[in-house]
Amino acid sequence: MTLITSMNRPFVLINGAMSADGKISSYLRRQVRISCQDDLARVDSLRARCDAIMVGVGTVLADDPSLTVKGSILREGRARQGRPENPLRVVADSLARTPANARVLGPGCLLAVSGAAPAERVANLARHCQIAAFGQRKVDLPQLLDDLYLKGIQHLLVEGGATLNWSLLKEGLVDELQVFLGPMIIGGKDAPTLVDGDGFEDGFIRLKLASMERIGDGALLIWRPS
Amino acid sequence: MTLITSMNRPFVLINGAMSADGKISSYLRRQVRISCQDDLARVDSLRARCDAIMVGVGTVLADDPSLTVKGSILREGRARQGRPENPLRVVADSLARTPANARVLGPGCLLAVSGAAPAERVANLARHCQIAAFGQRKVDLPQLLDDLYLKGIQHLLVEGGATLNWSLLKEGLVDELQVFLGPMIIGGKDAPTLVDGDGFEDGFIRLKLASMERIGDGALLIWRPS
Repeated sequence: MTLITSMNRPFVLINGAMSADGKISSYLRRQVRISCQDDLARVDSLRARCDAIMVGVGTVLADDPSLTVKGSILREGRARQGRPENPLRVVADSLARTPANARVLGPGCLLAVSGAAPAERVANLARHCQIAAFGQRKVDLPQLLDDLYLKGIQHLLVEGGATLNWSLLKEGLVDELQVFLGPMIIGGKDAPTLVDGDGFEDGFIRLKLASMERIGDGALLIWRPS
Repeated sequence: MTLITSMNRPFVLINGAMSADGKISSYLRRQVRISCQDDLARVDSLRARCDAIMVGVGTVLADDPSLTVKGSILREGRARQGRPENPLRVVADSLARTPANARVLGPGCLLAVSGAAPAERVANLARHCQIAAFGQRKVDLPQLLDDLYLKGIQHLLVEGGATLNWSLLKEGLVDELQVFLGPMIIGGKDAPTLVDGDGFEDGFIRLKLASMERIGDGALLIWRPS
């Protein structure tokens, strides 16, 4: 008997920037510039190395990110390797709430919805991107990752938000967290943190601290589930 | 005219342990062991060096800490210097909600209340500790710190919780934060974080990263407001 232990899903790396007190934005959910230039360059380099970048719909609604590689040298490097200039962009959006004018849409974008997404919205958004359904009421993340793997996605970068991070961690689907701690206090019991959702009461996810380094006036910690 | 700029309050150091995602306990507010042995030894050493240790009443209600120096060698060291074996214990408790059997009470404990604290509770608790009122509805923290300074308190260690940390930071009364990040994810949008309260919408407190070091499987970051 042969025990097959290979992983049939992409390597999943969560990247996030939080304040010294663990917040990723203010209590009004307005975007806060937490990263310094050096950290933004690090994130751009992470984007250039991965095959796909995923965010949750909350992040699309709050920040309207484009999820593209900013550095032209990095994009050219990908092209020289025969890869698309930008990684696949994936939005986990159970109810198809992504606005039709969101920057993330367009060629090279996959909207992952659930069976609960209203048909009219799905039909409308299908004119702007690929759409696929995984799961009944919420996006079934293991199914989505399986599908991405079959599409050739070996390295997936997740850029939040707090709820998608929670869902992935809860399901044991995360291989690494890169967390930049920016030099500021945001405060607020209702401000979003790196990992929200329900939270664990016990069975906390244990981590190993893989590395730590100073970047600008902040600190980058790299953690791996142990 | 002489401009007097010397600070008439103690040096205020907030110490806290949080998970990699910024939580200080689970969403049910049950105490979570975030610090490792080495970090607990560091905190005990901080306690032995300060003149007073302060917590908010929420921390007393949730964790019932004794706020004493655990290491006998550290206590003996204080005694050799002619200091009390344990620092003064201070509870910021606007409404005198501290239970009469709380471990923190007894000789060497100061309960700081406000004018809104019910007289009966104050009278009852006065049998177990010193009590003083600062401010009308909530403890006036600048007044309290002035008073502590007049009592000879030059170094004040604050051990949370999230609301007291917020109040002190908001009032600009903090000189240093020592934050241990423990190797775990707790998660939860309602879990207490290092700094709760209302939070800033703008005017975030800017910090400088004074130092970072690995302690056990976690990381100690030392920040100073800039």
